Amino acid sequence: MLRITVWNENLHEKTDEKTRANHPNGLHETVADALREDPEFVVRTATLDDPDCGLTDEVLNETDVLFWWGHMGHGKVPDEVVERVYDHVMRGMGMVVLHSGHHSKIFRKLMGTPCNLTWHDHSRERVFVVNPGHPIAQGIPAHFEIPEEECYGEPFSIPEPDELVFLGWYNTGEVFRSGCCYRRGCGKIFYFQPGHETASSFFVPAVRQIYRNGARWAAPIMRSDVLMNAPHIQALEQVD
Amino acid sequence: MLRITVWNENLHEKTDEKTRANHPNGLHETVADALREDPEFVVRTATLDDPDCGLTDEVLNETDVLFWWGHMGHGKVPDEVVERVYDHVMRGMGMVVLHSGHHSKIFRKLMGTPCNLTWHDHSRERVFVVNPGHPIAQGIPAHFEIPEEECYGEPFSIPEPDELVFLGWYNTGEVFRSGCCYRRGCGKIFYFQPGHETASSFFVPAVRQIYRNGARWAAPIMRSDVLMNAPHIQALEQVD
Amino acid sequence: MLRITVWNENLHEKTDEKTRANHPNGLHETVADALREDPEFVVRTATLDDPDCGLTDEVLNETDVLFWWGHMGHGKVPDEVVERVYDHVMRGMGMVVLHSGHHSKIFRKLMGTPCNLTWHDHSRERVFVVNPGHPIAQGIPAHFEIPEEECYGEPFSIPEPDELVFLGWYNTGEVFRSGCCYRRGCGKIFYFQPGHETASSFFVPAVRQIYRNGARWAAPIMRSDVLMNAPHIQALEQVD
Amino acid sequence: MLRITVWNENLHEKTDEKTRANHPNGLHETVADALREDPEFVVRTATLDDPDCGLTDEVLNETDVLFWWGHMGHGKVPDEVVERVYDHVMRGMGMVVLHSGHHSKIFRKLMGTPCNLTWHDHSRERVFVVNPGHPIAQGIPAHFEIPEEECYGEPFSIPEPDELVFLGWYNTGEVFRSGCCYRRGCGKIFYFQPGHETASSFFVPAVRQIYRNGARWAAPIMRSDVLMNAPHIQALEQVD
Repeated sequence: MLRITVWNENLHEKTDEKTRANHPNGLHETVADALREDPEFVVRTATLDDPDCGLTDEVLNETDVLFWWGHMGHGKVPDEVVERVYDHVMRGMGMVVLHSGHHSKIFRKLMGTPCNLTWHDHSRERVFVVNPGHPIAQGIPAHFEIPEEECYGEPFSIPEPDELVFLGWYNTGEVFRSGCCYRRGCGKIFYFQPGHETASSFFVPAVRQIYRNGARWAAPIMRSDVLMNAPHIQALEQVD
Repeated sequence: MLRITVWNENLHEKTDEKTRANHPNGLHETVADALREDPEFVVRTATLDDPDCGLTDEVLNETDVLFWWGHMGHGKVPDEVVERVYDHVMRGMGMVVLHSGHHSKIFRKLMGTPCNLTWHDHSRERVFVVNPGHPIAQGIPAHFEIPEEECYGEPFSIPEPDELVFLGWYNTGEVFRSGCCYRRGCGKIFYFQPGHETASSFFVPAVRQIYRNGARWAAPIMRSDVLMNAPHIQALEQVD
Repeated sequence: MLRITVWNENLHEKTDEKTRANHPNGLHETVADALREDPEFVVRTATLDDPDCGLTDEVLNETDVLFWWGHMGHGKVPDEVVERVYDHVMRGMGMVVLHSGHHSKIFRKLMGTPCNLTWHDHSRERVFVVNPGHPIAQGIPAHFEIPEEECYGEPFSIPEPDELVFLGWYNTGEVFRSGCCYRRGCGKIFYFQPGHETASSFFVPAVRQIYRNGARWAAPIMRSDVLMNAPHIQALEQVD
Repeated sequence: MLRITVWNENLHEKTDEKTRANHPNGLHETVADALREDPEFVVRTATLDDPDCGLTDEVLNETDVLFWWGHMGHGKVPDEVVERVYDHVMRGMGMVVLHSGHHSKIFRKLMGTPCNLTWHDHSRERVFVVNPGHPIAQGIPAHFEIPEEECYGEPFSIPEPDELVFLGWYNTGEVFRSGCCYRRGCGKIFYFQPGHETASSFFVPAVRQIYRNGARWAAPIMRSDVLMNAPHIQALEQVD
């Protein structure tokens, strides 16, 4: 059993008709549904509307992997919530950061870089697997199409990924590192570029499979406080 | 010509006799003197005592590599100064972070991890070169001794270094990743563990050589704003 | 169920009394016994004595993870066998390379470097976990002792590990990157330094746990030929 | 002064008219001419036609960076020459491997992987800088066009690059990791994908600049034998 919390700012859904049409129960429920296709996953959701963003220590203690979607509301996430999520990642909680989550406070904090990129509105994207032995690529064809996506372009100011899994090709002439893996503290982080609020990417089977693969990859082996302290220790032995 | 600014909180010097004895003009001047042994380096210093920590945009614009030493005063460095230094690193300014600078705001921000470690007071350290082809190891023997250092021990909660250059062995039974290289944005960061305020490490010739090598390695090829913006771009071409 | 083959050159056992005393059924059986403590592992062994080194395509097809111990007989392993093992790693088979296997043909081929190191005979080793969130460190204390080991010292001419899990401290004054992870093709490779033929390392509980953790980590998600061909493809689309 | 040797198999030039038209003095002289635009470079060439491939120890001792172009004649390079080049890389000589050199014996040996890829004949390529602070990207625009290139596609079976500098976009619908940096032993290796024998890539100014930048990046700080031996050492100290 893998316990997943899908977080979404849930703002576009309130003001944009196309987003609402795409995601009648909110984008978080769309992602959650894709995850629920795996019967071993127990999935809940949380949004900006919830007290404490729905991300209390209680919730995070019971979360193996946290999915994150945000865009226009990055600044509305309180710094205490960001710190709390960060602490849980350091202790082993996994994260899957989707699309415009690249600019969320938590992702920028984990990367230590601005995570800027270039972008424009409408593209057809083709996603290529560059690391076919990687668990997140399991069952994914050599390349697959996303009929409409927002184009994210290089340079993407991230640290060199620990593992690069996917590259995106756009018919509008750009490329992007679309699937990037990081290890930070005891936690693992997967960034995945598709997922514009008004695009149909969420319903592409390969995208949904990658959500599930990402969750399994990011899941912790265990949770540990070992990296959260800076203890004074006794010298282990004294040697002349 | 390489322009270096050595930053030091300059606090222990005011209250601790042994530190003052070691560094009569402040620890920053000790480091600066080691750097000035290279006639191509132009070195200045800055401390917590200076307005704006001495780290204005004017100073940073003229700084190729910023050395950083801090310990008891990490919290006294204003967040605006941290953000300013961070921006300059993203644009290409290099950094060399010494010893207890591992817990500075700026280093933790650049790493995206807590940078915790274990420690105790007195050890003899032996530093090993693990990457002898690396520019920072140039002219350094296979291993060298530091008669007295503070022991820093693993686990050190940093991201996997892009390049690990030195490992530390302690006679008290510990090991440490003592020399770690990172690339973040357009900037390069070198963390180097020796440099306890009351230890004589600063006067070990190999340590001083490593300061100079680190400065040359971290120096930018160029400065660029390219990663500091997230521009909307025009689609490059439209393909059917 | 995880299918493991433990390969050992089985030469010291024939000529050296201390090795025979340590490993009455051969060092391969000692390692296999440690692995068999996990009831989900199905373990077999193979040696230089077997036709084709016991490493036919049939055996390798049924091997999820191959353990490798060799020393004085590296040159006796035929190049065809090395190529065959390499092909299986590229297709996803995992490898755990022990101790003096650092100089085996297969490890050097996978690394692309000489994998040289310095060494001397007798040391007490203390192994430190530097990456406590890593699956191979699961259940391993922050550091543990090996009462007697051969000392392997830096510089160890390997590529920068994808993940460094363990560092070794020796009472004789050296350090070593004792646990290193690599991904090559679809396969994963774990190098682990303890395991001198006349030392008792094989019977240290933490070492045995690391064997089992290493096997689980190196196990493939799937096997795939996708990286073993260089096909001419059709252009996917023609854009003006 | 940087001493460069450009190696080319020089086979297509003898049988293919378009190649000869492109490179009247051989492809090696085309590359050499691009390098000679930097007055600090001293450039010579060597080919399969020379005794010992023109790559004797004398030549390699005087070579800071070796450029490599090969395709149909990979198998004609004697193994002793490959071993010799490899030894020099381990001692610090840099390499820049162009285009179809991806399948050369020396590149595959250095990578430890098959270096396979997919491909087809005719594409327009657009090369993107993903790491604008990297020395090899200095002076290169955010993206530039190559009017005609052979398409190389993912998956490219290489180890995760130490630094990824360029990505290629093709109008025919593919992407590729077109500029990859590796450190092996004391040497540095840069792989650069453009450079099909019948394409005009060699005359694109940005490509020529990247040759020169690559040469500077790959140049050794020093040459050292330190990684080429596996010495028995004395225990440094004996601790109780």
